[in-house]
Amino acid sequence: MNAAPLTRLPPGSTIGILGGGQLGRMLAIAAAQMGLKCHIYAPEVDNPAYEVAAKHTVAPYHDAQALSAFAAQVDVITYEFENIPVETVDMLAQLRPVFPDRLALATSQDRLAEKAFFNAAGIATAPFADVEDAGALMRAVAQIGRPAILKTRRFGYDGKGQVVVRESADLAVIYRSIGAHPCILEGIVRFSREISVIAARGLDGQFAAYDVAENQHANHILSKTLVPAHVTSETAKKAIEIAQTVARELNYVGVFAVEMFVVPDAAGVEHLIVNEMAPRVHNSGHWTLDGAVTSQFEQHIRAICGWPLGSVRRHGHIEMQNLIGHDTDRWLDILAEGHASLRLYGKSVAKAGRKMGHVTRVFPKS
Amino acid sequence: MNAAPLTRLPPGSTIGILGGGQLGRMLAIAAAQMGLKCHIYAPEVDNPAYEVAAKHTVAPYHDAQALSAFAAQVDVITYEFENIPVETVDMLAQLRPVFPDRLALATSQDRLAEKAFFNAAGIATAPFADVEDAGALMRAVAQIGRPAILKTRRFGYDGKGQVVVRESADLAVIYRSIGAHPCILEGIVRFSREISVIAARGLDGQFAAYDVAENQHANHILSKTLVPAHVTSETAKKAIEIAQTVARELNYVGVFAVEMFVVPDAAGVEHLIVNEMAPRVHNSGHWTLDGAVTSQFEQHIRAICGWPLGSVRRHGHIEMQNLIGHDTDRWLDILAEGHASLRLYGKSVAKAGRKMGHVTRVFPKS
Repeated sequence: MNAAPLTRLPPGSTIGILGGGQLGRMLAIAAAQMGLKCHIYAPEVDNPAYEVAAKHTVAPYHDAQALSAFAAQVDVITYEFENIPVETVDMLAQLRPVFPDRLALATSQDRLAEKAFFNAAGIATAPFADVEDAGALMRAVAQIGRPAILKTRRFGYDGKGQVVVRESADLAVIYRSIGAHPCILEGIVRFSREISVIAARGLDGQFAAYDVAENQHANHILSKTLVPAHVTSETAKKAIEIAQTVARELNYVGVFAVEMFVVPDAAGVEHLIVNEMAPRVHNSGHWTLDGAVTSQFEQHIRAICGWPLGSVRRHGHIEMQNLIGHDTDRWLDILAEGHASLRLYGKSVAKAGRKMGHVTRVFPKS
Repeated sequence: MNAAPLTRLPPGSTIGILGGGQLGRMLAIAAAQMGLKCHIYAPEVDNPAYEVAAKHTVAPYHDAQALSAFAAQVDVITYEFENIPVETVDMLAQLRPVFPDRLALATSQDRLAEKAFFNAAGIATAPFADVEDAGALMRAVAQIGRPAILKTRRFGYDGKGQVVVRESADLAVIYRSIGAHPCILEGIVRFSREISVIAARGLDGQFAAYDVAENQHANHILSKTLVPAHVTSETAKKAIEIAQTVARELNYVGVFAVEMFVVPDAAGVEHLIVNEMAPRVHNSGHWTLDGAVTSQFEQHIRAICGWPLGSVRRHGHIEMQNLIGHDTDRWLDILAEGHASLRLYGKSVAKAGRKMGHVTRVFPKS
């Protein structure tokens, strides 16, 4: 059984959001700016999103009673990260529309299903092999070669749940080191740049993509995003076509990100290899808050409410820098730049590797 | 006794805001986007700002105990409208820094004090006369002439507390009709345009003004704002100089608005007559949310935290339209424009004359 299909919510409706981190916080703010209320559902007692939402529920993701009470108080449900249990979404979907739906969530939660989905849609990925036990790892290495990357199929982010399989590595030790979870082994891609497409698809199939972003990572965490990416216009066009294919094949509703590698061949022609997708607003789209007509957060809210999508027009050339851990100690210098927009997530403790905020610099086009 | 002077608040601090309407709501959102918490204090049980603030207190503005408890929980205090009793600010200022201070508040609350302040600072206003009783009205009319406008000295907004004194009017009836409150009589200014300057002054005296806005009213309520205003660059420069004078003379901290009339002389030269000031963020600055690097709300928060001011750069030519009462019924058409940014204040009932939201359209410069 499923909830009645959503047509179009009026202003004043309540958005239910699973997860209360910075993405939930920025979604809640965007919703409020359009006259919507938000109700955050998350297991943590203290969370950045609670402070800017009309209501919040603190309960585990498998608490059927709490989920049901939550659903009764909201008009549509979304989530801020892809590690929400599919069972939670299944339970909620019986009571209220949930966007993105379980297909998008289940696909992006499992690296094996995700890569199989991409390939079935004609989208190139790195070579990969299923690794369900230590024996499978030996066969996978024989197939993919070394070096390669062993990744847990589920619950990896920011480089967690990944290990490089080098020439000298003892495969049994490696497999135990990653927790003996189901994994995939991926061939290493020699890329020149990492890019991402942030796009949205509306309930009526309307599609809109922001200009392609170029991403720089440090310690497996996004460090800097530049827009537009330094790729040919042909490559940018292809990247957006890939995102459009993903959205269409998943019958997707909401904002999502597709991360890709740019791989130049010997003749210098750029090829695209898709790394992964995220069924949600994405760090490499944070620049849209201060650098585009419609932020990715507003765009997501528009999509899940059944509203028309907004303009993805940029206000200039963009540089977005993540503020990780003690990077935020430089807050005063950033404010003093004048043209920089400092966004902080309200987290009290600046742990190493923790995303504390970001800064967007918009350079006028002329 | 006054609270210890504010130097500079760190992120994570709490802003206390008196008043919980749409201005408080947009201030609270701006504060949250920079990692600050907000605590709203207002007498209403239900208010647009409560939903986006970490905390709120419902109590009257003269409740000393509630004010004192509120002050103990915040680091700096501001207000969203100028009809806060000066006594409230005086009480709070003993406990915490309050910006703008009592001088700005008291000056802008009283049309007589305000006009006297402008004239003392060398700023031209309409001719005016003090009307403290019905007899004074007769003398004032003899001095100013008819038609003229009788305005209550205090608590007027959006055309409330104003009446035109025409040739035929019975002065005693007119004076009773306005409630026999202390008034001023103002000469009518034959202006070609109404403009406003939204500007900010930091704790260290730093000054920044947005480009001059041109305002169109309907039924005494702001209907539309265009930026830049259709005035000569010389007039725009003079308008900003007037704002800078006001800020300096008041030793002002925060964002404020100065409303002016453009009066062309027989030779076509534009002269400026100041109408009034507002010691707060202002409706004619709402476009900055979507059309400038730094919104007026962020700018105000920066100023009262002792932070450097942000860039006032525009993203293009601006048209901001207020959505009054049932104007919001057109929400779907506005969303469907794509390039328009729809901002709604979360008010449940669309009463006539009630400001329900606004829409900003940014037209790229080239």
